[in-house]
Amino acid sequence: MAQNKLRMERLVKQIAFIKEIDKVKYILRRTKLFNSDRRENDAEHSWHLAMLVMTLAEHANEPIDVCKTMKMVLIHDIVEIDTGDIFFFDKERSHDNTEEELKAAKRIFGMLPEDQAEEFLNLWIEFETKDTPEARFARAVDRLEPMLQNASNNGGTWQEFDVHYDAVLESKMGIDKSSKTIWEYILKVLEESVERGILKRD
Amino acid sequence: MAQNKLRMERLVKQIAFIKEIDKVKYILRRTKLFNSDRRENDAEHSWHLAMLVMTLAEHANEPIDVCKTMKMVLIHDIVEIDTGDIFFFDKERSHDNTEEELKAAKRIFGMLPEDQAEEFLNLWIEFETKDTPEARFARAVDRLEPMLQNASNNGGTWQEFDVHYDAVLESKMGIDKSSKTIWEYILKVLEESVERGILKRD
Repeated sequence: MAQNKLRMERLVKQIAFIKEIDKVKYILRRTKLFNSDRRENDAEHSWHLAMLVMTLAEHANEPIDVCKTMKMVLIHDIVEIDTGDIFFFDKERSHDNTEEELKAAKRIFGMLPEDQAEEFLNLWIEFETKDTPEARFARAVDRLEPMLQNASNNGGTWQEFDVHYDAVLESKMGIDKSSKTIWEYILKVLEESVERGILKRD
Repeated sequence: MAQNKLRMERLVKQIAFIKEIDKVKYILRRTKLFNSDRRENDAEHSWHLAMLVMTLAEHANEPIDVCKTMKMVLIHDIVEIDTGDIFFFDKERSHDNTEEELKAAKRIFGMLPEDQAEEFLNLWIEFETKDTPEARFARAVDRLEPMLQNASNNGGTWQEFDVHYDAVLESKMGIDKSSKTIWEYILKVLEESVERGILKRD
């Protein structure tokens, strides 16, 4: 009976968290859906990344824990409930794992039972700062998706914000450490984008 | 070298699939976001279900494979790209695993390399038709989410489509086989909803 009560107390906290993260569906990114003018929100983006992990895991240079990597991408943008989306090519705001983001992570994951809050926080910190195979792969698909979107949208944010080839290439750096095959594919798509005239190369 | 080419061929197929399933973001459900008038789309819904699995797995009556269950909910609505969303309380259309849905699953998952197409198709069939602990839990959270949404939206689709307590309760049947704790919680929320006057009991 006492155990029943404990279980229900945990569930009530967890459901409060589940309701809170509904707000992720309102956070708009700069990038747009494929062949579309509609901006993508963080929940859609996170779903798509989880699908990328599930589908492309075999291309990681070293074997990854698929489950852990899916969890990472599913939760990676939850902090933006408090901080908002930061555009990759925004030069005004820092993209580092800021105090503001850490505070947001602690508040939101802190709604969960303590052991789970710690698990989620650690996953988020790993995604943001660690050089593990899982974090590297999660960050790789996080940078692959907008490239695919821009290439399908006549240049998308590359055109909108006048981002040139070198800056795009720099933003993808490190992906080869996660997957040589995906990196090769990216170089090919960027080259085609230059040829198609939707990405400027100085 | 030949292996490189093979890997790239697989990746190209997988990316075509990743682009195709972007369409999931346009499929609207009847239920609305929490405390909101905006309808939820299938990508947002699938992300939220994966978060429910990740957060609530401990409440399953018998241990579940969390990774497999997350994969199931992530892909469960992809067939709706071809078939559209079927509202749970729609009495005109069948909710069974129809020929139309199976055809859609075969077409869309069939874009992937053969071994992967088979894996995804089997996950989808398990979700739709099998009595495994994972499929039961996946279906349980799929029915938990709209209840939470309706309870937060002054009755939501219960009010909009005049759905009464007995029908709602019937729609949740079987969840106790997956999780007694979640089932107990559902009964509590439905009871409160009747008391608050947002769910009719004849």
